[in-house]
Amino acid sequence: MARINEHYLDLAAGYLFPEIGRRVTAFRQAEPQARILRLGVGDVALPLAPAVSEALQRAAAELATGDGFRGYGPERGYDFLIEAIRQHDYAARGTEIAADEIFISDGSKQDAGNLQEIFATACSVMVTDPVYPVYVDTNVMAGREIQYLPATEANGFAPGPPEDGARADLAYLCSPNNPTGGVLSRAALARWVAWARDCGAVLIFDAAYDAYISDPALPRSIYEVDGARECAIELRSFSKRAGFTGLRCAYCVVPSACTGRTAAGGEVSLRDLWARRQATKFNGVPYIVQRAAAAVFSPEGRQQTEAQIAYYMENARRLREGLRKAGFAVFGGEHAPYLWLRTPNADPSWDFFDRLLRQAQVVGTPGAGFGPAGEGYFRLSAFADRETVDEAITRIQRAFAHG
Amino acid sequence: MARINEHYLDLAAGYLFPEIGRRVTAFRQAEPQARILRLGVGDVALPLAPAVSEALQRAAAELATGDGFRGYGPERGYDFLIEAIRQHDYAARGTEIAADEIFISDGSKQDAGNLQEIFATACSVMVTDPVYPVYVDTNVMAGREIQYLPATEANGFAPGPPEDGARADLAYLCSPNNPTGGVLSRAALARWVAWARDCGAVLIFDAAYDAYISDPALPRSIYEVDGARECAIELRSFSKRAGFTGLRCAYCVVPSACTGRTAAGGEVSLRDLWARRQATKFNGVPYIVQRAAAAVFSPEGRQQTEAQIAYYMENARRLREGLRKAGFAVFGGEHAPYLWLRTPNADPSWDFFDRLLRQAQVVGTPGAGFGPAGEGYFRLSAFADRETVDEAITRIQRAFAHG
Repeated sequence: MARINEHYLDLAAGYLFPEIGRRVTAFRQAEPQARILRLGVGDVALPLAPAVSEALQRAAAELATGDGFRGYGPERGYDFLIEAIRQHDYAARGTEIAADEIFISDGSKQDAGNLQEIFATACSVMVTDPVYPVYVDTNVMAGREIQYLPATEANGFAPGPPEDGARADLAYLCSPNNPTGGVLSRAALARWVAWARDCGAVLIFDAAYDAYISDPALPRSIYEVDGARECAIELRSFSKRAGFTGLRCAYCVVPSACTGRTAAGGEVSLRDLWARRQATKFNGVPYIVQRAAAAVFSPEGRQQTEAQIAYYMENARRLREGLRKAGFAVFGGEHAPYLWLRTPNADPSWDFFDRLLRQAQVVGTPGAGFGPAGEGYFRLSAFADRETVDEAITRIQRAFAHG
Repeated sequence: MARINEHYLDLAAGYLFPEIGRRVTAFRQAEPQARILRLGVGDVALPLAPAVSEALQRAAAELATGDGFRGYGPERGYDFLIEAIRQHDYAARGTEIAADEIFISDGSKQDAGNLQEIFATACSVMVTDPVYPVYVDTNVMAGREIQYLPATEANGFAPGPPEDGARADLAYLCSPNNPTGGVLSRAALARWVAWARDCGAVLIFDAAYDAYISDPALPRSIYEVDGARECAIELRSFSKRAGFTGLRCAYCVVPSACTGRTAAGGEVSLRDLWARRQATKFNGVPYIVQRAAAAVFSPEGRQQTEAQIAYYMENARRLREGLRKAGFAVFGGEHAPYLWLRTPNADPSWDFFDRLLRQAQVVGTPGAGFGPAGEGYFRLSAFADRETVDEAITRIQRAFAHG
């Protein structure tokens, strides 16, 4: 008799975004004339940069030729992309990462969800709250217990490690943070690394938004902190950095020094386990997508994708200023494409969602959807065109400035 | 202390193909002049069909435009592709599959590896032997026991269900079979369905090679058999059908009638569990790849990809005839791109690998690499250009015709 994985029954009822979709559809049916502005789902809005698009089309054309056709690629990624990452994202910033520590993937969501497979079911898991739901749900599916560490105004919505002696075997950190837009300083990251080494824990450091860090003093990679090679796995992505949400390319770094333990106390290389996992369950990212990703590192690609990020960050600046003028307490948006606002009168975040939709026809994301500590807060995304952002600000100011 | 998933330590030492690569590299170093012919890894050789390539390039160009850009897609796939599959692969052959039973993925390897996640760890697993290693390794990683059902000359290298009363909770069937090239008849499939319904088992039917079936009387889908909707999940792929091994697109059908059980005996929809799994851990196949896959169903796409399959099957015919002339007992290659040959004098299959490489500079795949019942057999792939195939036949005949 085929028994199901009953841990699925422990999952929270539904994913956040389908519920938002349901409410927006209902509103649209009630008010078919309304022009809805979407600052909800964190999806990019600008088309592919020319350098990236040209590389993609060139690679697509290659596949139709006898000499240029490529079948199965290396499941860990093509050397041309791994080498570009090693050079530009690490060596150029003074961090040495070896080619065989870099694994190309089809998304940080996938990496964040799959990495837990190489750990024992008995491992305890810590996340900050509010949290990107994938960290929680994939561990619940595997039957693990989750500890939540609240992100609050006091800790800049980017908490350091627990100070009450709490321990865990795995901790997921997201910096710049989705959803709060908070960012971990070098000192806070160093405290996390010290905590992990003390616990024998592994940190899964999700830096999918690192390209949005505007202060050059802030670390972009956890490996800029001493000791991280021994305890941290890092995820980075082309999704938000270069508009790859629909193309799918990211990477994961598992340093050779990073180990886990067997029950008997033996040390095992996590890099080797991850390599085995990927060889067995993955077949690599399409060649054409890897060519497009490599073009992000060309001089034109860098300049064009940096201009896209500057465009989104100008959106974030306008939203921040505009919402403050409307009387909101606003956080984030300086090193991240997300604004985190306190709801007026500490209203429940789903109530505020409905009110914003009704009074300004603007869609955002209720903080409660990301975890209990998100209650009373609301996420707005800077991923939109300028006109939408400016119009949203005008409408919100009109609807809320006096209330 | 981060404990590892110790089931990884139960995996067989290494994946088959890296070992082949190691031996070929060693031979190349010893004999740098040798021109090696590769009929080993089952990777396609012909470039993308023009209709597919044009759709890919058109979609790539769209992404550089404001109107044509696409970010996150539906993680279950775009409607245009799901609808084409529903129409052409099912409705046109008299089988009704609903759109919400089809899940687009980045490969049958991934689907075959990930589906076990929705089942309890306690489920017992049955595979036929020799076997595509992914079915075994992904279940070993999850800590499950595996039962092997030998594929033999007597059962046409495509065994029906056990006749000794053996039961299991999950069974993986691959037809046309990789590696043996055997194919399950309608009657054999019906016996599998009856066995599964008797056991309360779920069949995972991997039809990644269905396009190679040359007899129109043979079923292409398990849903052509009555009762399969209640117990079978089907995997199909664009990899071998249209040269997508490097582009990555496949799909999985989970019928709404297909259920598993909780420990308490409750019925749970496997489609809903799989939808939750994919929503949580997957972000969809790139839009451009789905456009390319949809072009496989256009009149030009069908005609061009059918011509590619005919080309490979002519390779298979020549290999079959040529090897028989050289004195080999040869199986498969009629409804599959794989030839399965008995090694001369029942030699161990790795010894024959070395001998074939040394005496004919031809690379194939030792049967033992696919499981114990593969010992004494050898796989040759028809995925090559005609010149390579003809030259390989000539060399094998020269090396083996008298011995």
